[in-house]
Amino acid sequence: MAKKVEAAVPRGMRDILPEQMIRRQYVIDVIRSVFEEFGFEPLQTPAIEKSETLMGKYGPDAERLIYSTTYGEGKDKLALRYDLSVPLCRVVAMYPALLKPFKRYQIAPVWRAERPQKGRYREFYQCDADTVGSPSMLADAETLNVIYEILTRLGFKKFVININDRKILTGVGQFAGVADELLGGLYRSIDKMDKIGLGGVRDELRRNEIPEEVIDRLLALLQIEGENQAVLVSLRDRLGSYPIALEGITELEEIVRYLNALAIPEQYYKVEFAMVRGLEYYTGPIYETTIEEPKMPSITGGGRFDELVGMFLDRSYPATGTTIGIERIIDAMEELNMFPPEVGKTVAQVLVTLFDKTLVDASLQMTNTLRKAGLKTEMYFEPTSLGDQIRYAGKKDIPCVVILGPDEVAGNQATVRNLRLKEQQTVKRSEAIELLNKWLVR
Amino acid sequence: MAKKVEAAVPRGMRDILPEQMIRRQYVIDVIRSVFEEFGFEPLQTPAIEKSETLMGKYGPDAERLIYSTTYGEGKDKLALRYDLSVPLCRVVAMYPALLKPFKRYQIAPVWRAERPQKGRYREFYQCDADTVGSPSMLADAETLNVIYEILTRLGFKKFVININDRKILTGVGQFAGVADELLGGLYRSIDKMDKIGLGGVRDELRRNEIPEEVIDRLLALLQIEGENQAVLVSLRDRLGSYPIALEGITELEEIVRYLNALAIPEQYYKVEFAMVRGLEYYTGPIYETTIEEPKMPSITGGGRFDELVGMFLDRSYPATGTTIGIERIIDAMEELNMFPPEVGKTVAQVLVTLFDKTLVDASLQMTNTLRKAGLKTEMYFEPTSLGDQIRYAGKKDIPCVVILGPDEVAGNQATVRNLRLKEQQTVKRSEAIELLNKWLVR
Repeated sequence: MAKKVEAAVPRGMRDILPEQMIRRQYVIDVIRSVFEEFGFEPLQTPAIEKSETLMGKYGPDAERLIYSTTYGEGKDKLALRYDLSVPLCRVVAMYPALLKPFKRYQIAPVWRAERPQKGRYREFYQCDADTVGSPSMLADAETLNVIYEILTRLGFKKFVININDRKILTGVGQFAGVADELLGGLYRSIDKMDKIGLGGVRDELRRNEIPEEVIDRLLALLQIEGENQAVLVSLRDRLGSYPIALEGITELEEIVRYLNALAIPEQYYKVEFAMVRGLEYYTGPIYETTIEEPKMPSITGGGRFDELVGMFLDRSYPATGTTIGIERIIDAMEELNMFPPEVGKTVAQVLVTLFDKTLVDASLQMTNTLRKAGLKTEMYFEPTSLGDQIRYAGKKDIPCVVILGPDEVAGNQATVRNLRLKEQQTVKRSEAIELLNKWLVR
Repeated sequence: MAKKVEAAVPRGMRDILPEQMIRRQYVIDVIRSVFEEFGFEPLQTPAIEKSETLMGKYGPDAERLIYSTTYGEGKDKLALRYDLSVPLCRVVAMYPALLKPFKRYQIAPVWRAERPQKGRYREFYQCDADTVGSPSMLADAETLNVIYEILTRLGFKKFVININDRKILTGVGQFAGVADELLGGLYRSIDKMDKIGLGGVRDELRRNEIPEEVIDRLLALLQIEGENQAVLVSLRDRLGSYPIALEGITELEEIVRYLNALAIPEQYYKVEFAMVRGLEYYTGPIYETTIEEPKMPSITGGGRFDELVGMFLDRSYPATGTTIGIERIIDAMEELNMFPPEVGKTVAQVLVTLFDKTLVDASLQMTNTLRKAGLKTEMYFEPTSLGDQIRYAGKKDIPCVVILGPDEVAGNQATVRNLRLKEQQTVKRSEAIELLNKWLVR
């Protein structure tokens, strides 16, 4: 046998113990059921991909965070997946017979060797829903509808889905007269507006050697504010003469119209043309969601990536979708105490006690009966004192206990105790289920 | 952007496309709901463990199959998990405050670089339920009950859970007068009885230089057959004078008694004292399940492993549980066509058509209404011909289509077509849900 080693996980990794895992599963179950209501289909891809599948897709800074993997002599170059989008594109390229549009979801861990810090782990879950094969803005509007539906169903009241379009960003570059190779710096400055304000952006742009006259035009543009419709009108007014910008504006107009038809309240989405998403592969609308209460940075990220499949194939497919990051959603829900009461600290709803070895059959049979009635039931296995067994249920937060002592067994009865109401009743054994169902939040 | 690469997965890896994934999720959902009915709680451990956590636990042959992983300069020795039992023991050692008994389940992939062959992959799922902290045979009987319940609920009619006890195997060694260091060979020979028969086992034992007189006693023992009770009586008769064997026999007697009290029919479990499980860490009862129709080798494996936690801690905890391998279960269910009709080829139950851009709002609103009624609904996004849209639904096996053309929209109606019954009705828009609910297998 092995020599004893310290029980520990690698840096940046973590275990999710039951109490937290029960909440996590609740969130995942809600996300999955919304994905399926919208007709997205489940896909599973392996955690391990060929290195060449991942490399060259995310940019050099991201690539450094990719885990390599090997076995034995380790001849094959393998890597752990970094996101779910690149594997999706590989799948679309590999199975040309997949009917289009291909609407798939995947809920799975990804691995990134980021510097560990509070709330950031090297293994974390992504929940992706994407539509491949449709160029229609209806697919983008549907993606936003999915986000709205999930957050609403989880109980969030204050969130905003920020919407922009890559084509508008290109148009802004043309408007500012900024050469292609300087666009990166321009966008990084614009992206900081939330943090550093207009003055800060002006300083940044100066440092990037953008002419003062261009800065004035840009800052005037950045001050456009208001209702979505008004913002789009102003944008059309100022940028409409740049064909690429006009295309982007038209796309957003279409999306806003569809969101309207879907009766999604205006307060939940915002045309935010200073919003820039990091990944280079977006080609059209882009979107990210911020929670206002509690203040949370981006909890979803997505957009249209019409060219990504082309990295594996001679042709490409229009594609759009979003990633939903559950880690921050769970943090927010814990902070605001948003989990419904039936999402308890433990799975079991009932503990059946064991008096002693002679009464074991009665306890086994009662346990069996409760489970067959759909009640999540644990039976206590050690014939310790009743007090011990009830304390165990209490510590574990199991709401109800069914006590079977000699009197109960002799009288074909059961004593049912509700630990939350601190109430107990001795009933016929056949009536225990009814009483438990009444007491348990179902 | 990256240079184009071939879309492919590493050797031994695979994608699970929606049609197959839908079935897979059905099986996982059933397993999870049984685990929870029995009060097992969910646990998540990271895919990446420290190498030292895994090494020295599985034996050298297994160790060679473990994937290493690194990032950047790769200073830390990391590995992908090989099973879910060793991480469980690490968790139990790391969090001493976890209340005992600790009943946890985990459904997750593990990675083993086995030689790829038909039906065997290097990433596969394990579904584990274990009870840590109870020495009671009730915990073992419950594990068997879990297996029985899952297989029954999935629809299996012919399966057998084979039960043995490590202590009986030790007793058999003593009975045969085989020295400790020869026990391995003895067990490997016994384990082959199913394949090579009694004569084959005799030849094997001779090759292992076991004296002819011992072989006779062993073979006489191996011929014990019959009902579980009868087998246990014979075993007690022949091996009862070896204290370790007697302990094992008593454990099995207790388990059989509990299975009886739980009303699990005798045909589903069998005391099979020639059954040997590979892993070295078992200390008491061991169990594995074979499906008789279609013939499938072991689809579950488990047993008691009272010492494993001790590899991480100065003390150990009694522990028992099982792994359920879903890959073979899914294969068997596909072969026997066992999936219920509501587990279709696709997720969507309804396709809403799109006539043209002018009628897009009507289609969006209908889609929205159906989803809010809980129907899994896809909307077609491209205004192609109605024929094309219906053909798409047919190819995809979406059972119903809701058609909204100019006549329907003008008359506040919808034409609902059932592609399976080849039937259609034009109804008031508000009545579409009722008709769809009637038509769909819910």
